[in-house]
Amino acid sequence: MRHVKYALCINKACGLQVEPKPDITLCPKCGEVLDITYDYEYLKSTITREQIEASTDNSFWRYKPFLPVEETSEAPALRVGWSPLYEKHGILGLDTLYIKDDGQNPTGSLKDRPSALCVVKAKEAGRTSVACASTGNAASSLAGSAAAAGLSAYIFVPERAPKGKLAQLLVFGANVVSVQGDYQAAFRLSDMAIQKWGWYSRNAAINPYLMEGKKTVALEICEQLNWQAPDWVAVSVGDGCSIAGVWKGFYDFYQMGFIDKLPRLLSVQAAGCYPVHKAFRAGTEEIVPMSEDTLADSIAVGVPRNGLKSLRALEASNGLAVEVSDEEILAAMCELGRSTGVFGEPAGVTGFAGLKKAVEQGLIRKDEKVVTIITGNGLKDTANALKAAGEPISSPPDMDRLLVEFEKRGVKPE
Amino acid sequence: MRHVKYALCINKACGLQVEPKPDITLCPKCGEVLDITYDYEYLKSTITREQIEASTDNSFWRYKPFLPVEETSEAPALRVGWSPLYEKHGILGLDTLYIKDDGQNPTGSLKDRPSALCVVKAKEAGRTSVACASTGNAASSLAGSAAAAGLSAYIFVPERAPKGKLAQLLVFGANVVSVQGDYQAAFRLSDMAIQKWGWYSRNAAINPYLMEGKKTVALEICEQLNWQAPDWVAVSVGDGCSIAGVWKGFYDFYQMGFIDKLPRLLSVQAAGCYPVHKAFRAGTEEIVPMSEDTLADSIAVGVPRNGLKSLRALEASNGLAVEVSDEEILAAMCELGRSTGVFGEPAGVTGFAGLKKAVEQGLIRKDEKVVTIITGNGLKDTANALKAAGEPISSPPDMDRLLVEFEKRGVKPE
Repeated sequence: MRHVKYALCINKACGLQVEPKPDITLCPKCGEVLDITYDYEYLKSTITREQIEASTDNSFWRYKPFLPVEETSEAPALRVGWSPLYEKHGILGLDTLYIKDDGQNPTGSLKDRPSALCVVKAKEAGRTSVACASTGNAASSLAGSAAAAGLSAYIFVPERAPKGKLAQLLVFGANVVSVQGDYQAAFRLSDMAIQKWGWYSRNAAINPYLMEGKKTVALEICEQLNWQAPDWVAVSVGDGCSIAGVWKGFYDFYQMGFIDKLPRLLSVQAAGCYPVHKAFRAGTEEIVPMSEDTLADSIAVGVPRNGLKSLRALEASNGLAVEVSDEEILAAMCELGRSTGVFGEPAGVTGFAGLKKAVEQGLIRKDEKVVTIITGNGLKDTANALKAAGEPISSPPDMDRLLVEFEKRGVKPE
Repeated sequence: MRHVKYALCINKACGLQVEPKPDITLCPKCGEVLDITYDYEYLKSTITREQIEASTDNSFWRYKPFLPVEETSEAPALRVGWSPLYEKHGILGLDTLYIKDDGQNPTGSLKDRPSALCVVKAKEAGRTSVACASTGNAASSLAGSAAAAGLSAYIFVPERAPKGKLAQLLVFGANVVSVQGDYQAAFRLSDMAIQKWGWYSRNAAINPYLMEGKKTVALEICEQLNWQAPDWVAVSVGDGCSIAGVWKGFYDFYQMGFIDKLPRLLSVQAAGCYPVHKAFRAGTEEIVPMSEDTLADSIAVGVPRNGLKSLRALEASNGLAVEVSDEEILAAMCELGRSTGVFGEPAGVTGFAGLKKAVEQGLIRKDEKVVTIITGNGLKDTANALKAAGEPISSPPDMDRLLVEFEKRGVKPE
C-alpha cells in the first residue's frame, strides 16, 4: 500500500505510528484506536478527478485509490455504494436539500461499505473466516459480504435479539451464536472465539479499516455534487464511527484539492442516548456512558467506541449537535417518505429529524446547501414504521361510504 | 412519440391498432389487452449501442429511446433500475450463472420499473393522482414513485392485508383504503373511484405501458452481458406481465440487431398456483383460474390478467415451464443467500428454485449461460425468511460450552 503512510494512534500523548498490516487492531502501546494516514502528495501524483469521473465502476470501489487496500486486491463481490443523491427543493424549508439514500445498498445499510472492505482486508490477511458481535446492520452486512466472497461468518448475538433481525444473517448462511446473556456477554464470547480461531474481526471498536469504508459515502457526495462540498452534512450518530468516516472522506478530498472547502457537520443523536454530545458540550474528550433509551436501535450506543474520533470531527468541522426524541424520529420518517419517496429506518432518518430541528431553530439558514445521509432502509424495521405511519382508511365496498370516510379523514380526491 | 407506431390488440381475431395516448387501457373493440408496437426502422436510424453505453445515467432511464414516453418527459425522481448482474461459477452445478438482483430498487422490487414509468405517463396525461388495488410490490412501488414525483396515490387493499405490508405505503403518504371485503371487493371499489375522480390507473391488467417498464430489466441484461444474449432466463411467474416484459426487452434489442439471438425462457410457477403452465401444457390460450395456495404471495395469482402475453412469450422463446413447492422456494432462498449474498423474497427466488430443478432434471445443460432474475428483496418478508433459515446456535457465554454446541451442529471453525 504505497499510498498509506501508517496507522496513527489518535491519543495525542502517544502518537505511535503503526505499520498498516491487514490485521492491526488497537494501538499496541496505549490501547487507543488507530487512524489510517495517507500520503496525499503521492496520491496527487497518481490520480485526478477526471480519472475518477471516467470510471465505469458503479460502486464504492471506484475510489479504490483512496482505500487502504493492496493494488492487487479484487473488488468485493457485491455492488456496494454509489447510492443515489437526490436533489430536492423546499423540503424542511430549505432551498436545496440533498438526500443520500444509503439504504440502497445490498443488505440495506451504509454498513455494507465497511463490511465489504473488511472482507477484502480479511482476504489480504489470509483469513477464511470473519466475525463480529452485533444484532444489527454490522452483522447483516458482514454476513452478506462474507457469503458473496465465499468466507465463513461467525456472528454473536445476545439471546434477547429479536428473531426477525436474525433472518437475514441466517439466510446468508452465517454461523449465528445466540449467547445466553446480554450484549457484553456476546461480545466477550466473540472476542475469546476470535482469539482462539484467528478469525478476522469486524469490530469498529478495534479495526481501523472500517472507518475507511464508511468514508466512501462522503467521497461519493463530493463527486455527485460535481466537486462542490455542501455547507452542511446531517448525520445520525451512535458509535461515532460513521460521522468520523464522513469527515475523513471530505478531509481526504480536501487534502487532494478535489474540493475547496470542508462542510460543517450536524451531529444528531437520540434524546434518550447522547453521550457524544454531552462530552462535546462539556468540551471534554472524556465520554461518560449513558443508558440506551431510544427505538432507533442502530444508534442506541451507550458506550461509543469511536466517540473520540467523532468529537474530533465535530470540533474540526465547527459542527453542531442536536438531539431528537423518538416521536420526532418517527415523524421525520413520514415527512421524508411523503416528500421524497425514500423510506429510512429510525436511525436512518435521525439525521433528517435533527436537520428539521436545526432549521426551525435558525441554526441552519434556508439558503445553505445541506446533505443528509439516510443510513438504513426502512424495510429493516417495519414495526416502528407502522407506529409512525398510522392507520389506513377503512371503508365498505361502496362509493357513498367511501366519500364519507374520505371526508372524515380530510381526504379531498382530485 | 415518433418511435411508437401504435398499441396493438393482442387478440389476433381483432388486431385493432389504437393510438398510443397516455391513458389508453384495454382494446376499445374487443376488451383484450394492448401491446405497444415500435418503429424499429426509425429507432435504428436514431440510436446505437455505443450511444447507450456512453450514457452516464445509472437507471433504467438510460433506455429512454426504447420507452413509450414523450421526448420532453423528465426522468423519474427515484433512481430505478440498472441493478447489479453478478457472474457466478459453479452454483447449481452451472458453469456460469448470472444473478440479476432487482431487489436493489428504491422500494425493493422489480415493480419499481413499471411504477416509475406509470408516474411518467400519468404526468403526460395531465393527472395529479395515481391509483391501484394491490397489497404488494405494485402498491409500495407506486406509492414511492408517486411521493417522489409529488403526485397523490390512492391504494385499495382488502381488509385482511397484513399491517406490516401497509407500513411502506403509509410512510410514503399514500391514501390507503382498507376495503371491508376480499381482493375483488377492493378491486371493484378502486375501479369505481378511478372512474369517478379520473385518477391514472396502475393496473397491469389494463395499462399496456407497465410491461414496457418491466422490459427494461432485459435491456439491462443485454448491455451488462456486453450484448450477448444468454441461453436461458429463469423468471418467476404470477400475473404473467413480468415474463412477457422480459421477453419484450430481448425482442426489442433483437429487432434492433443489438443482440444476435433470443434466449429461451424458463417460466417458474408455484406448485400451488400455476394456471399459466396448465394452459401452456394443454396447448391452449384459455387460462382456467386456479386457487392461490403458496406462501410466495407476489406470484399467487389465480386469475392472471396477462396470461396470454406470457403464453405467447413462452411459445415464441421455445420455453420451458417448471413448478416448485413452497419448501423448494424456501430452500432456494437459503441456497441463493449462502452462495451469493443476495437475499430474495419467496416469489423473488422462485425463478432460482425452478432453475435448480431444471438443471437437476437435465432440462438445462451445465455449459449453458443462464440468467435468473431476483424480483424482490428478502426484507419484504422476513417472516418467511425465518421459516427458511432455521434457528441460531444457542450457547452459554463459555468457550468450552461453545465448542460443544459447535460440535452438535457440525460447525468446524477454521
